[in-house]
Amino acid sequence: MSTAGLLVIGNEILSGKVVDVNSPYLAAELRPLGVELLRILTIPDDIDVIANDVRVMSKAYDHVFTSGGIGPTHDDVTLEGVALAFGRDLVLDEEMCRRMEDAVGRPLNESMRKMAMLPEGCERAEAENLWFPVVAIDNVYIFPGIPELFRKKFESVRDRFRGVPFELKRVYVTQHESEIAHHLNSLLSDFAELMLGSYPRLGEPDYRVMLTLESRDAGYLERALESLLSRLPADIVHRVE
Amino acid sequence: MSTAGLLVIGNEILSGKVVDVNSPYLAAELRPLGVELLRILTIPDDIDVIANDVRVMSKAYDHVFTSGGIGPTHDDVTLEGVALAFGRDLVLDEEMCRRMEDAVGRPLNESMRKMAMLPEGCERAEAENLWFPVVAIDNVYIFPGIPELFRKKFESVRDRFRGVPFELKRVYVTQHESEIAHHLNSLLSDFAELMLGSYPRLGEPDYRVMLTLESRDAGYLERALESLLSRLPADIVHRVE
Repeated sequence: MSTAGLLVIGNEILSGKVVDVNSPYLAAELRPLGVELLRILTIPDDIDVIANDVRVMSKAYDHVFTSGGIGPTHDDVTLEGVALAFGRDLVLDEEMCRRMEDAVGRPLNESMRKMAMLPEGCERAEAENLWFPVVAIDNVYIFPGIPELFRKKFESVRDRFRGVPFELKRVYVTQHESEIAHHLNSLLSDFAELMLGSYPRLGEPDYRVMLTLESRDAGYLERALESLLSRLPADIVHRVE
Repeated sequence: MSTAGLLVIGNEILSGKVVDVNSPYLAAELRPLGVELLRILTIPDDIDVIANDVRVMSKAYDHVFTSGGIGPTHDDVTLEGVALAFGRDLVLDEEMCRRMEDAVGRPLNESMRKMAMLPEGCERAEAENLWFPVVAIDNVYIFPGIPELFRKKFESVRDRFRGVPFELKRVYVTQHESEIAHHLNSLLSDFAELMLGSYPRLGEPDYRVMLTLESRDAGYLERALESLLSRLPADIVHRVE
């Protein structure tokens, strides 16, 4: 069982100009891998802030992912921040330069050389069909903010993170949360290890609350589900999936 | 000029079951009010984690907003966490009980009474057409996770946060970031106070990069925009808005 933190880097998200779609994507990807995502943190393009948060998260979680800030412009300072977090220098990576020159078909300008400045001693995991690899330092994986590239790159390293997955059941009920809360409490007193969520939805025609039951143990989950269904009045259960 | 942090509380978001739409909503609302959102943090439904992060954020920013975890079920522990952050007790609020009884038309059950347990000495700001007020302690405003209610409640207190707004211009260019980065750097050396963002987009038919220029000073912004347009080759500017 492993844990993770996600660091989203970008003024554009904090200022409401761009909607972060990488967080929901990664959250939904990590769960079936069995990785428990414990923190998503969105911060500005600021080297010292990045360095400090990377340092804290790298110690707190098994895996840390960053999103954004690795392009060629002045506001792309993620690599610098991550390098600072680990007390490393950025050094020009000659092989990356050659690849970029091959990709663009001419000598690199200064902005492109900036993208080939990588933290000393970093790992470079190849991403299929992309000339730029996934750069990792220690347990920190650095991904671009552009959603299409974030996805391609995560897919290229996804299997590294595979563990014991969570099993999930959903129960949709037609009653208000406050009418079923005591059933949930009594279920948890019998199934203390169950991860149980209760989420009211407005404007759904068929149900008022989605309950989620999760466990890494499929048998335990099945017994908890049966127990819940025996507690709830049958006519308030809209469906189970 | 004021700053803010947003604390999103909910296992459902970290585990990829529910997409957080309150963060992009609040980010887009705060910006035109002139409030600088500096951190968005998503954490589990865990009293001690909530208490700790509320304490840190309350000291770091002028305003802190929380989203989620204030319903009647076992996983709704935000009020308890916020109270703990400020060393306060939760106490049964008799007026809230009366309101809830009026709303449901019968005596409250235990789960509903849980919702009327509020931190000692909290402020209750009335939200139009909602029986449950916006609860605030010190500089921390507590909002529900349900998007419809989050919006209604934020709207009811929005005017408290109004300051000097940011003015924004967008310039769409047809070149790659790495081809224009040196123009951006030279612009910033003349306009050091300008907030300048550069965001590549894949799959847009008409442009490759969206540049954003921001300032609280409209004249300064106008001069910076003119300066940028004089630096960029005219044929790579797709549009300005």
